[in-house]
Amino acid sequence: MPSNGRGESISELAQKKVRRFFSIDTLYKRVPVTRWMQDYNLECLEGDVMAGFTVGLTVIPQAIAYAGVAGLDPNYGLYSSFMGCFVYVFFGTSKDITIGPTAIMSIMTHEYSYAGSADFAILLCFLSGLIIFASGICNLGFLVTFISKPVIVGFTSAAAITIASSQLEGLFGLKFDSEGFIDTLVQLFENIGDTRWPDITLGISCMVVLLLMRKLKDLKAVKAQQHDTTGTRIWKKSLFLMSVGRNAIVVIVAGIIAASLNKDQPFTITGEIQPGLPNFVVPPFHTTINGTYFSFSDMMSEVGIGLAIIPLISILESIAIASAFSGGKTIDATQEMLALGLCNIMGSFVQSYPVTGSFSRTAVNSTSGVKTPAGAIITGFLVVLALAFLTPYFKYIPKASLSAVIICAVIFMVEYEYVLPIWRVRRIDQLTLWGTFLTCLFWKLEYGILVGVGINLGILLYNSARPKINVDIVMKEESDEPRYVKVAPRSGLFFPSVDHVRTQVTKTAITAANSRAPVVVDCSHFSGIDFTASKGMKALCTDFERRQQGLVFTNITPGVERGLRALNENVNIAKTPEELASTVTNGYLGSSGGGVGISAGRVGLTPESGDNDVTNPLLQGTNQSRPTIVPVSAD
Amino acid sequence: MPSNGRGESISELAQKKVRRFFSIDTLYKRVPVTRWMQDYNLECLEGDVMAGFTVGLTVIPQAIAYAGVAGLDPNYGLYSSFMGCFVYVFFGTSKDITIGPTAIMSIMTHEYSYAGSADFAILLCFLSGLIIFASGICNLGFLVTFISKPVIVGFTSAAAITIASSQLEGLFGLKFDSEGFIDTLVQLFENIGDTRWPDITLGISCMVVLLLMRKLKDLKAVKAQQHDTTGTRIWKKSLFLMSVGRNAIVVIVAGIIAASLNKDQPFTITGEIQPGLPNFVVPPFHTTINGTYFSFSDMMSEVGIGLAIIPLISILESIAIASAFSGGKTIDATQEMLALGLCNIMGSFVQSYPVTGSFSRTAVNSTSGVKTPAGAIITGFLVVLALAFLTPYFKYIPKASLSAVIICAVIFMVEYEYVLPIWRVRRIDQLTLWGTFLTCLFWKLEYGILVGVGINLGILLYNSARPKINVDIVMKEESDEPRYVKVAPRSGLFFPSVDHVRTQVTKTAITAANSRAPVVVDCSHFSGIDFTASKGMKALCTDFERRQQGLVFTNITPGVERGLRALNENVNIAKTPEELASTVTNGYLGSSGGGVGISAGRVGLTPESGDNDVTNPLLQGTNQSRPTIVPVSAD
Repeated sequence: MPSNGRGESISELAQKKVRRFFSIDTLYKRVPVTRWMQDYNLECLEGDVMAGFTVGLTVIPQAIAYAGVAGLDPNYGLYSSFMGCFVYVFFGTSKDITIGPTAIMSIMTHEYSYAGSADFAILLCFLSGLIIFASGICNLGFLVTFISKPVIVGFTSAAAITIASSQLEGLFGLKFDSEGFIDTLVQLFENIGDTRWPDITLGISCMVVLLLMRKLKDLKAVKAQQHDTTGTRIWKKSLFLMSVGRNAIVVIVAGIIAASLNKDQPFTITGEIQPGLPNFVVPPFHTTINGTYFSFSDMMSEVGIGLAIIPLISILESIAIASAFSGGKTIDATQEMLALGLCNIMGSFVQSYPVTGSFSRTAVNSTSGVKTPAGAIITGFLVVLALAFLTPYFKYIPKASLSAVIICAVIFMVEYEYVLPIWRVRRIDQLTLWGTFLTCLFWKLEYGILVGVGINLGILLYNSARPKINVDIVMKEESDEPRYVKVAPRSGLFFPSVDHVRTQVTKTAITAANSRAPVVVDCSHFSGIDFTASKGMKALCTDFERRQQGLVFTNITPGVERGLRALNENVNIAKTPEELASTVTNGYLGSSGGGVGISAGRVGLTPESGDNDVTNPLLQGTNQSRPTIVPVSAD
Repeated sequence: MPSNGRGESISELAQKKVRRFFSIDTLYKRVPVTRWMQDYNLECLEGDVMAGFTVGLTVIPQAIAYAGVAGLDPNYGLYSSFMGCFVYVFFGTSKDITIGPTAIMSIMTHEYSYAGSADFAILLCFLSGLIIFASGICNLGFLVTFISKPVIVGFTSAAAITIASSQLEGLFGLKFDSEGFIDTLVQLFENIGDTRWPDITLGISCMVVLLLMRKLKDLKAVKAQQHDTTGTRIWKKSLFLMSVGRNAIVVIVAGIIAASLNKDQPFTITGEIQPGLPNFVVPPFHTTINGTYFSFSDMMSEVGIGLAIIPLISILESIAIASAFSGGKTIDATQEMLALGLCNIMGSFVQSYPVTGSFSRTAVNSTSGVKTPAGAIITGFLVVLALAFLTPYFKYIPKASLSAVIICAVIFMVEYEYVLPIWRVRRIDQLTLWGTFLTCLFWKLEYGILVGVGINLGILLYNSARPKINVDIVMKEESDEPRYVKVAPRSGLFFPSVDHVRTQVTKTAITAANSRAPVVVDCSHFSGIDFTASKGMKALCTDFERRQQGLVFTNITPGVERGLRALNENVNIAKTPEELASTVTNGYLGSSGGGVGISAGRVGLTPESGDNDVTNPLLQGTNQSRPTIVPVSAD
């Protein structure tokens, strides 16, 4: 019977796996509601209802507005806003995250849905959901770690500017077709003569009110104090609610004004919205737009790279928010991806476009005192109610007020405040930031991400191809002759760097120590070795042998030693200070022999393993006589 | 007046640069002939003439045969074989390298020259030359270090098999159009009935003779001995010449046989070759093939990715050969690229297709005792003579003999002997090897390189995203309570890894040490820090502060410290053993205070910086009492 090392048969192992798969821990992990529901109490309910209601008030106007950014009818924004809430309650791990339409997902959807067809957006939602779910199963979450913060900052800022510029059309009451930031500005200036003054007046008023109300919750007078009376507390709570519910308030007031002027409408209004709840149907795998039939593969080729970019950004946004609100706990990225995937898959059955975690609503949720993911049930329920009963009234909402809502939401996404810190930490990251930003703004959003990741990986790979190499010449104690040369590359030994290391070691050996002093290669920074590197080191050994010069490797891990010896049995490796002392004393290492002249005890080789610019506090301050060390720059 | 730190004005600096640019050292470096020509003597001349002649005998039959691999008429092979020789004499740094057509460049040229048009091949040569030259100027040579040995082995082996299979047509005397390895085999079996027996008989005989003659020079009887008489020496020299000149001998003999049977030709022969030397003309920037006009941009779009692949492989082959024959000296990759670029640029004016260093002819050159790059003048001159006077006779060369020459040259390029060593050094490199090999063989040669580089970079990036992290729990001396937890990531701190490091440190902090022991992050393997990493470490500090748990960074380089402090002024960094001892003794680091209870002298923190599996021979064997260290695997 086949068995593994611990004497277990394969069938036993399989049984174990199956048992673990069906264990209660797996249930807790994969359907987290089963765990937190056990501790649910009245206090949780109170917090959840309050927060859920507040988020509901935020999401309804945002959804209607973002649908416009996605190039879809307003009802699709609402369709996208409830299913994610319900699904996340069961599978989500974070109490704060609220799933739904966001500004960035909306503009990405706009880019990939052909001719503004909702069918494309819904299919995109379904397929993105599948891809996110599959990525979760395959543990591909680490891919988002390749998108660095400067890339995210550049992308988000450019997306915010692009989105804001796309709303100028509604704000000015104009009508034109445009694509991208530059085109929009050009069109705006060409059409500026047709500006509708009621629209722009309303729009700018809404923006001023929104920005003022946003400040409201930050006022000292609104902060809860311990000695507040019940009356003060209610007053403060109301002010807070007004602040976070500002979008709803502004849109409702604007809508009421527009409705009361119905006969002689001065504003551009939203117009009829398809009333009622969406049907629960399978997403469309083929469609007909303006008489043109699109098969599944036609739709696929239209969507193209969107199938990679949209899931990526969806995961990125969601995980970033989860980390920000985790309060220092590690997040289960896999579970978050599974949950997000399911939200999108299920959403596509109620005609949702791609959704992800919303930063603004998550913040509202958190500050409103949400206790468990159950708060989202209330939010979802509010959206369903709005769809069922309020759609007839939505038609009066002035477009300028929606544009104001979006512009006021996205302008704070322009993260100019990162420019200086990035400069302070590492200057070359500015290249990543601006490369991403400018490409996103003037070319295409998704290309910006690719350019940014490309620059980042380029820098990373350049660093691994050209590691810093510290060179020290260790002098003999009572003369000015070099005793040996220590070379310490500051990075792993893999194929891109091995030629550089070999060249530098050779150069050092020839120039820095013309007296044929042996060279000691300090391997303490080598985390591993690959075939190319091992072969390069073998060539290095051959070079040294030909020159009759000593070459010793030291501070070597067993893995690297195995890799080195696999190709070169006779490589000189010093494992103890005594070994090193005797080899470097003998000069050329071809001959064997005990340490002559200088005993191991007095050699006192440099105590750092690799750096001459670091004082190593993990070491005792040993008071031994040390040989002179002359650092030589090798770069 | 603007000046740099050393008080030099910018104009002074510029003058200095100009002076350096026009110095004799620059001349020696960039036109190496000016240096070695000074020491030229009769002995050099003897070696160079002998070697140049031998290489000439090798290159002529190879050039005629390789032209077939490139899908061009035989004369183009010869056109490609002399200009490189003449140019390299002036600009090359290696005495051994011989530039000319090679099997791999020939098959790559075949792939990118539309409909076997020589005009495409010549343009490719010119543009590749420009790109190689420009890459040399821009110091882009490091790009080839991203092609690891397993990729090269996989590519070369697959190319060899593809080239050999392409020669079966000529060997069997068949005529069919095929592309790629599989297609060729299929066609061969479909057409095998039409095999021409004289051709295959001649072909196989030639192969047997070639392989036997190849062995000749390795025989003991041919090795030069000290006590050889002049007669013996001449005899041995002749045997050696026969061995390295075997291609010429076989082709000449086969040609004489074919010519003597001219009336009733049993063999498929090469046929008329355009006689005489090529004209010296500007490369074709537009062309007409079978009545279709191709503008420059049409040609460009046909050539496509070839403009990246051909220069890359050209550089790769040349640098690899230069390294192999450098005898341990560092090679000036930039100068080699400049020389190779000029060889191609100048070559394109005499209708050459892309050329590079030939491994086989370089080996012949070296073993024939070449002394300086001047040997190539003789080689080039022989080719020119052949073009001027011998082309009328080349038409009799049987195609089967040329196929035999190629097959016998390339079968030794299948480097099966690498499989086992690669397995021994690092098993995952097998994935690179076989991924490259199979893609090259069954899809397209250039895609194989891309796949191989992709796998390699994937492994490298995965390693930098998921560095190994060593975790040790250092126990208190007289209890079983942890004193502190030491976490040592084994790689640099850059954006892909920071999330992983943060998660692991947090996990360690929470699970491994539930007594809130402080955590010490050993940064000795951090070679640098970028913005994303610095931000992640700031978040980590915040997490720890929130948990009231201590977090200290130690073994930190000034650069990394600067990067950390840029975002997080108050990060705890211990620079000396005393600092570390006092901080970890106090537990939570928020409060200040001197070391209580355990003096720095007795703490005896672990002497290794990062590894618990390495004995550090750069350290004294200090006999202090050490706290217990319990290694915990974090992966």
